[in-house]
Amino acid sequence: MTTGDPTRRGRAARQAARLAQAMEHLPYLTRTLAPVEVISSEGLEQIEHNADTLLEQVGIEIVNYPEATEIFRSAGADVVDQRVRFPRGLCRALIQASAPRVFTQRARNPERSVVIGDPHMVLVPTYGSPFIHNLDDGRRYATIEDFRNFVKLTYASTVLHHGGGTLCEPVDLPVNKRHFEMVYSHIRYSDKAFMGSVTHPDRAADSVEMARIVFGADTLEREHVIMGLANANSPMSWDFNMLGSAKAYAEANQIMLITPFILGGAMAPVTVAAQATQTLAEALAGMAFCQIVRPGAPVIFGSFASSMSMQTGAPTFGTPEPQLVLFVLAALARRLGVPFRSGGNFTASKVPDYQAAYESAVSFMATMQAGVNFNLHTAGWLEGGLAVGYEKFMLDEDQASMAGAYLKGVDVTDNGYALEAMLEGGPGQHFLGSPHTLANFETAFWRSELSNNDSFEQWQLDGGLDAAQRANVRWKARLAAYEPPPIDEGVHEALRAWIDQRRASFPDSDV
Amino acid sequence: MTTGDPTRRGRAARQAARLAQAMEHLPYLTRTLAPVEVISSEGLEQIEHNADTLLEQVGIEIVNYPEATEIFRSAGADVVDQRVRFPRGLCRALIQASAPRVFTQRARNPERSVVIGDPHMVLVPTYGSPFIHNLDDGRRYATIEDFRNFVKLTYASTVLHHGGGTLCEPVDLPVNKRHFEMVYSHIRYSDKAFMGSVTHPDRAADSVEMARIVFGADTLEREHVIMGLANANSPMSWDFNMLGSAKAYAEANQIMLITPFILGGAMAPVTVAAQATQTLAEALAGMAFCQIVRPGAPVIFGSFASSMSMQTGAPTFGTPEPQLVLFVLAALARRLGVPFRSGGNFTASKVPDYQAAYESAVSFMATMQAGVNFNLHTAGWLEGGLAVGYEKFMLDEDQASMAGAYLKGVDVTDNGYALEAMLEGGPGQHFLGSPHTLANFETAFWRSELSNNDSFEQWQLDGGLDAAQRANVRWKARLAAYEPPPIDEGVHEALRAWIDQRRASFPDSDV
Repeated sequence: MTTGDPTRRGRAARQAARLAQAMEHLPYLTRTLAPVEVISSEGLEQIEHNADTLLEQVGIEIVNYPEATEIFRSAGADVVDQRVRFPRGLCRALIQASAPRVFTQRARNPERSVVIGDPHMVLVPTYGSPFIHNLDDGRRYATIEDFRNFVKLTYASTVLHHGGGTLCEPVDLPVNKRHFEMVYSHIRYSDKAFMGSVTHPDRAADSVEMARIVFGADTLEREHVIMGLANANSPMSWDFNMLGSAKAYAEANQIMLITPFILGGAMAPVTVAAQATQTLAEALAGMAFCQIVRPGAPVIFGSFASSMSMQTGAPTFGTPEPQLVLFVLAALARRLGVPFRSGGNFTASKVPDYQAAYESAVSFMATMQAGVNFNLHTAGWLEGGLAVGYEKFMLDEDQASMAGAYLKGVDVTDNGYALEAMLEGGPGQHFLGSPHTLANFETAFWRSELSNNDSFEQWQLDGGLDAAQRANVRWKARLAAYEPPPIDEGVHEALRAWIDQRRASFPDSDV
Repeated sequence: MTTGDPTRRGRAARQAARLAQAMEHLPYLTRTLAPVEVISSEGLEQIEHNADTLLEQVGIEIVNYPEATEIFRSAGADVVDQRVRFPRGLCRALIQASAPRVFTQRARNPERSVVIGDPHMVLVPTYGSPFIHNLDDGRRYATIEDFRNFVKLTYASTVLHHGGGTLCEPVDLPVNKRHFEMVYSHIRYSDKAFMGSVTHPDRAADSVEMARIVFGADTLEREHVIMGLANANSPMSWDFNMLGSAKAYAEANQIMLITPFILGGAMAPVTVAAQATQTLAEALAGMAFCQIVRPGAPVIFGSFASSMSMQTGAPTFGTPEPQLVLFVLAALARRLGVPFRSGGNFTASKVPDYQAAYESAVSFMATMQAGVNFNLHTAGWLEGGLAVGYEKFMLDEDQASMAGAYLKGVDVTDNGYALEAMLEGGPGQHFLGSPHTLANFETAFWRSELSNNDSFEQWQLDGGLDAAQRANVRWKARLAAYEPPPIDEGVHEALRAWIDQRRASFPDSDV
């Protein structure tokens, strides 16, 4: 990553840097390493059976959204008041009949379009924090300026494949109009794929409309250019804002990420298998809803499961149990045949310290291993998601760059076995200059750009900075070197005009 | 862990704390989760075949130790000068004929004896650093006082099952006499199992002799009470000090940990399969040597593989490639049928920062997942092993306590599925007070003792300490609360007298 290199300045240097970056940049990862399995196929079948029992006997409560209950009824569900119960297998059949196993989210820059589904993995920055943290300011409320900063940092990242959505909550803007500036920022300051608003169906529709202006109505009808994220109100409940937003995206043939959000022990039982069962049941209902609204509209099966402190009720991260939930749900998603989203660099820590890194790494290892296709929360998450950290963002992004090497697994070609090289060597001979080493030099080992592997003495001479301090230098350099991607001026003006007109058409509100 | 609680003082409180600690303390872990496999059985067979080709064609150089070449010749190897070549399958056959799959290392306190081999896992502190690091002193040379401190911290740990060996190098003592005080400290300040010296065969023999005084000659003949660690001089070379020490332990029916130490690209080719092949070949020779010396003497198949920076040649940790090597070698050890040692909380960082934790966690996740039986380097490792950190030790130990929960895997009993609990609940109902939650309350989620999951405001009120600062408080409290375990006074006097006599019998030397 050379965009932040302060020794090369000027337009030519920046162009060269961008070129180098483009060449390094893979639009998404492809795995050859087999996913980790932690439960037998009998166990997975039992969970599927139990999820169907939940959907059949308990059903899903649809809160304040009669239209959605009618949509479910039209497809064969039993509806009593707000409660929707599903005949065994109905949701699965609806999903498997039309939801794509793999699809492309088109980016404004087509070279950055992402393929979502097996055997691919897309890395995406964190989502939804009302606070930011950095070494200069400490922790404070996020603003639209922070939002733009994270769009820019993500745009210039060679690791993150997707622009993400609510990179932070711009709390300096009215709640009911934030989506205009957030979606605009994704479009104007980046050319990667992005997510729109889901805080109200109208805002979801606005987001889709902005995408329509930028990509054109024809493209929107045929391709998938924007994504929304809907969380269930676990246990076993979906509400108007979430399903209404899902309907807005699905109707327009756009992508819905359907994610039950479960704090084990609060919204579900404490055990791994039960959390997986309930997540599956809730997600099946949400994904089936999208398929009824518009068969073939892409859905992603999401899971966010956290453990909690049984002493205080606080959510905890980087613990073993949510990783096991993640492995189980990834296997269930493969059996269902839809892309899977979960995981990330999670922590409850308030600062980018040892706790933050350990919890993040435990989470991200499972994320890499399980076969996650869309990794929301790859970079930035602090404080249980309440804050996004500038240094944390850079540190996570840097570590996440290992995923490419990890997902390749073990090279079992003759080059990988390297028998000839070992037979040529002999006892006590080093391999530093051997033909095999020279042939594999460039791709031999993944290497962090932020980790310091120097001697203690060299490290001390260079200022003795810890990782967070090095990351602080790095995000500032990247922002300083930022240049926006090109955009068609006509499209830009049309978009801006639409936003200004629409924004002025109703009063500000903070709900 | 209550030993460090500053609110409970006095002998009675300490006894109560020790009782609570003993009750919590499992002497070793037992896994039910299946190990992660990253390569097919065909791939493993190819590696085994290639390792035999290396042993047959290249062979092992035995440096300055004619007695060892004769030992190998006696068992059927071809010897030319210092080079020993092995007919295909010879080493494997020698090992499989007599090396135990699982064995017990007896501790001075029999309740702390550890079982080494599948399906168990033993956690052991870091080994061999000449420097220490803590927040008070920064980085400095280690002393025998530091060594005693780490013995005490390990003794009082409810997470670390084994006392380890060279917890740090006491560089204030002459090189040729350090082993007396190190082994003495393990015996006097702890009652856990421990490791002896291997820096010279005489020091190995001294270590075994000290164990004989403490455990008795009869016990030593029948049981395994002390362990030595031998590293190959990769590639394909073993020297006098290492094999001579191995001979001293094996002759006495004691345990040898046979560990090729490979910096990929320097001592072996850069590829994962090649590093696994060479490690297997070197370890086969070392373990076979022990079985020829004394059939049935326990051996552990060890691997230490690190990646390196191709820019600077510096070793790097927490990268994907060594984790893949670890997974492959764990599978090879299972096929061979001996216990496996690898992994730990590794980092190249100089301080307990984000880099240190991330690299450590990536390494330790693989360690938990691969089926490692003996995890040297569970806690304390900093700076590529050059330093052991006091705070790092506490932080790693705390995180490593998750291994028990992780290795259990997914509960697929009715209690784990918890279908009844979910059917009783219903949409929107929380599970905090449900009978299932109450029944599983205590064991529901693993919980760190050093991580902070409080709100930002509470954390700030409590001083806003980062994880390393909290660990600093914790190691001081644990040392302050330390009380030595009981020891038979006669044994103690005999040991001390033997050491003093032996130590006075030859001059100090720093080689």
